[in-house]
Amino acid sequence: MNFEEKIRSIEDYPKEGVTFRDITTLLKDGEAFKACIDAMADLVRDEKVDKIIGIEARGFLIGAPIAYHLGLGFVPIRKPGKLPSEIVSESYELEYGSDSVEMHIDGIEEGEKVIIVDDLLATGGTGAAAVKLCRSVGAEVASCLFLIELDGLDGRDGIDVPVNALLHFPA
Amino acid sequence: MNFEEKIRSIEDYPKEGVTFRDITTLLKDGEAFKACIDAMADLVRDEKVDKIIGIEARGFLIGAPIAYHLGLGFVPIRKPGKLPSEIVSESYELEYGSDSVEMHIDGIEEGEKVIIVDDLLATGGTGAAAVKLCRSVGAEVASCLFLIELDGLDGRDGIDVPVNALLHFPA
Repeated sequence: MNFEEKIRSIEDYPKEGVTFRDITTLLKDGEAFKACIDAMADLVRDEKVDKIIGIEARGFLIGAPIAYHLGLGFVPIRKPGKLPSEIVSESYELEYGSDSVEMHIDGIEEGEKVIIVDDLLATGGTGAAAVKLCRSVGAEVASCLFLIELDGLDGRDGIDVPVNALLHFPA
Repeated sequence: MNFEEKIRSIEDYPKEGVTFRDITTLLKDGEAFKACIDAMADLVRDEKVDKIIGIEARGFLIGAPIAYHLGLGFVPIRKPGKLPSEIVSESYELEYGSDSVEMHIDGIEEGEKVIIVDDLLATGGTGAAAVKLCRSVGAEVASCLFLIELDGLDGRDGIDVPVNALLHFPA
């Protein structure tokens, strides 16, 4: 299936000069959505991991069905202040300022192997923070899996585990 | 499977006197997560709908795998300012003040039948707003489906379509 043509490109969003890749046009197409999740799962099927880790919010839309399909547990990485139990936190740099992500400290058991899933790899700041979060609780990160990688931003260079992406678009 | 025992109850969160039902302990258990999605899908399998509508953010974790399992398209209802294309918006009352939810205007085609999915039914404000959003673009809402219903808050009384919930907890 040509997944690229299911992605809507929106010019000058969220700011001038940026082309936003909108995955909602893929998600709303039942056949394309199913084929996309299956194809992403195929990329990691041999990795024999314990859990899928998904990054809020669009990473939930991709990561949760992949976990379901593979019969694995799912652990959310969330924006600050959203998780009700004891958390670990990790900050990362933005173009201006910084942000942070949080995970329940008991989301992953020590020694478990995980795959981190998100919709989009751009500069890789969130992905690298997610890797650190998982390692901070003793997990082994097998790989990171993205629906879309924006080429030319070197996002995967900051992530020291294998990176898989189903689709590629110019940044 | 006893799904209730997979839910973690956190006392006095987010405020004193409230018991928060934390679904992350269910999600991280691969066997329980899979069985939960299958059981929720069983509740609506005969409804013959076109799309699953999930409410940000925990509704994504439940709704996306249900859509995948049923081979249906998924449409996100999001908090304000998150969707990149043309939207419809609906406000609803909170205990203090109000909030609103948004959906892409082209997420659902006129005449399509949908099921709205979220993790928790409490007072039902978000659910009722989601029903209005879907109707505003000409969709027929077949039902609303929740993982957990908090009993005693009469949340389903404000939702004028059939309501299904897999689990029940006291409010």
